[in-house]
Amino acid sequence: MNCDCGSTSAMLNPKEAMRLVLERAAPLGVERVALSRASGRVLAQTVVADRDYPPFDRAMMDGYAVRLADAGRRVAVVGEATPGVAWSGRLTDGKAVSIMTGAPCPDGAELVVPVEQTVREGDGVGLPDDLRPGRHIAYRGSDQPSGADLLGAGARITPLALAVMATVGVVHPLVRRRPKVALVATGNELLDAAARPERYQIRDCNTPLLLGVLHRLGVSDTLCLRAADRPEEIRARLEECESYEIVLLTGGVSAGRYDFIPQVVAGLGWRVVFHKLAQQPGKPLLFAERNGRLLFGLPGNPLAVHLCAQRYVAAAIRCMSGLPALPARGVGWLAAGCANRGERTLFLPARAQPKDAAGGWSVEPMATHGSADIFPASRANAMLELAPGQALCSGAEVQFEWLAGECAGEGDPA
Amino acid sequence: MNCDCGSTSAMLNPKEAMRLVLERAAPLGVERVALSRASGRVLAQTVVADRDYPPFDRAMMDGYAVRLADAGRRVAVVGEATPGVAWSGRLTDGKAVSIMTGAPCPDGAELVVPVEQTVREGDGVGLPDDLRPGRHIAYRGSDQPSGADLLGAGARITPLALAVMATVGVVHPLVRRRPKVALVATGNELLDAAARPERYQIRDCNTPLLLGVLHRLGVSDTLCLRAADRPEEIRARLEECESYEIVLLTGGVSAGRYDFIPQVVAGLGWRVVFHKLAQQPGKPLLFAERNGRLLFGLPGNPLAVHLCAQRYVAAAIRCMSGLPALPARGVGWLAAGCANRGERTLFLPARAQPKDAAGGWSVEPMATHGSADIFPASRANAMLELAPGQALCSGAEVQFEWLAGECAGEGDPA
Repeated sequence: MNCDCGSTSAMLNPKEAMRLVLERAAPLGVERVALSRASGRVLAQTVVADRDYPPFDRAMMDGYAVRLADAGRRVAVVGEATPGVAWSGRLTDGKAVSIMTGAPCPDGAELVVPVEQTVREGDGVGLPDDLRPGRHIAYRGSDQPSGADLLGAGARITPLALAVMATVGVVHPLVRRRPKVALVATGNELLDAAARPERYQIRDCNTPLLLGVLHRLGVSDTLCLRAADRPEEIRARLEECESYEIVLLTGGVSAGRYDFIPQVVAGLGWRVVFHKLAQQPGKPLLFAERNGRLLFGLPGNPLAVHLCAQRYVAAAIRCMSGLPALPARGVGWLAAGCANRGERTLFLPARAQPKDAAGGWSVEPMATHGSADIFPASRANAMLELAPGQALCSGAEVQFEWLAGECAGEGDPA
Repeated sequence: MNCDCGSTSAMLNPKEAMRLVLERAAPLGVERVALSRASGRVLAQTVVADRDYPPFDRAMMDGYAVRLADAGRRVAVVGEATPGVAWSGRLTDGKAVSIMTGAPCPDGAELVVPVEQTVREGDGVGLPDDLRPGRHIAYRGSDQPSGADLLGAGARITPLALAVMATVGVVHPLVRRRPKVALVATGNELLDAAARPERYQIRDCNTPLLLGVLHRLGVSDTLCLRAADRPEEIRARLEECESYEIVLLTGGVSAGRYDFIPQVVAGLGWRVVFHKLAQQPGKPLLFAERNGRLLFGLPGNPLAVHLCAQRYVAAAIRCMSGLPALPARGVGWLAAGCANRGERTLFLPARAQPKDAAGGWSVEPMATHGSADIFPASRANAMLELAPGQALCSGAEVQFEWLAGECAGEGDPA
């Protein structure tokens, strides 16, 4: 299982690794959520019109409901219709009903004349010469008839989809579940972010990093654990994660003598799908499965954790949540050259910024001294992929992948 | 204040209206949040390195810390360094220390040789001929020296920015506040989504719609109220919103006899900045301010609410939250023709989908029968803008604006 050869030729490439992950990331089951919690979720039911829409002949303007025969005449205003309150009579020639936008049109009304095209005089109103049948009336059922499919399973729930569900009274829609994700940070040297480190200790930054990626993907059901580099402790922590569909370990996944993850994972019955990829950063990535649950053994260094989470873990989460697996791609122009002098696929964090009003992107690779230097990369919102030996000049057109939840530049929900 | 003329020439255009909104949407103050709540927020402080990074000379590979003089020789393995645990001696010629990735290099070490380039024999190890000074050591302070600025005010908090803050022990960062938003849905005809409507009643879909837009913008501090079409009731509800920086009213903003919003708003001391725009949908939009608070009087029809919220309200919220005001733009090709035969700027909901692997977008205008038909538009993730008289053929290149939180196609946090 554990290949400690240094050769890249024997290693799986990132594309093939992605395929192996996606094959095993099946959409989860469904759950009902309140409408107030459904934004951004993936619908798992059809939403059907409970009645005709509009449910009645509805005025589209403030004005008067009138008869065609009264074009150019002065007619008597015999009543009023407001939203929620119909005028109960039947409109006949020579009469008009004052009507508000959204109000039900009275029986017999043939059109609505906007108020600004009329002249009100006491209890009468003067109408224009040009009356056209049906003007400014949205007829019952003209948008959608009762029983029509309004939203389909698989649709992502937009603000307007929320409005559709509210309209027809679907207040607890069935949606795809999102995975529950457990994090286990391993390493004797790790402390909480709030602690004061001794000289050789470091604060655990991988847990906040992963929680940030999960937040962008809408995953909020998480468990955060920590383990020292001892097999029995790692095993005990993993046993606490049994109810989580995805387990993310950080650290201890290389071939070193204190890297116990592979043996512990195998000992708990996980089947290792791959271990080590021809990629930089994140070469030691381990991926295992057990009964539909997925385990990612991420390296300890944060830029490797970042790449593996944004690329493989995010794809698995999207798939399990019913979303397209791969993030949106963009096209832009490099603000600075970059090159891959190694033998593995190089993933470079980059910052894409609008280049012009026409929708183009300027893409700046985030220079890093080494794969553990997270400081410049923290501004990245995109990822560049360079094949072994590939070099790109400043100004070159490049494709890039948006990092999870990026692109629109919005503040994500907390 | 209230112009009920039908002429578009007298009306403000959408661009000018946006300028008037942005002029009045000043960034709010700051607040401290826990790191676990900081994802996606806008940083309002500088984050500084609390010590050198790396904080010690750190091994970048599993292997042996050695001396240059020992190239091609077999040396004695005299100790071990692991993450968090240094080897306390000083390395001299003829000796090596077994070392793990992330461990502190011993004093005197001149490089780290990866384990796969060595031959271990008992308590000795054979080294390769080619040793280069400093290889696989990240020297103390080589990423960032103590005191260096790591993150600046105004940066959006990415997952890696969370990692940076955890690394240096900033566990309650100062961030820009997001506005608190109160919603008041007005209309005698409105019911809760869970209620069963009588023939002329409709369920309130504007509140869920607006909450969906707010969710995409990260606004969670909201108040939802409802008022019948009576001035005193609307006034009372508005008085409940005093502590909210943005107030969104729906309905009652036209020039009809039951449209009390303009008079009530003015009576409460709000200054109306504009009322009515040369746009479709959403012509009756009212915008007012009072002491830095903003009020939007949105029309009652949901597609108008959607456009006004996605365009003007979202821009104000982004500004107040410290983000760029305007959403990202995309460029794509129309999947179907569309035209604006009116005299006002037409905003059309549209669906952008990847056209090819090269990052192009196919943009499908969402056909609607009228401005209250939300059903087809619920699939939209983008908005097209057509000038009066403008017609575009299928296949034409178009710019579009992403709706709030769209583009990457992610599931947003619930």
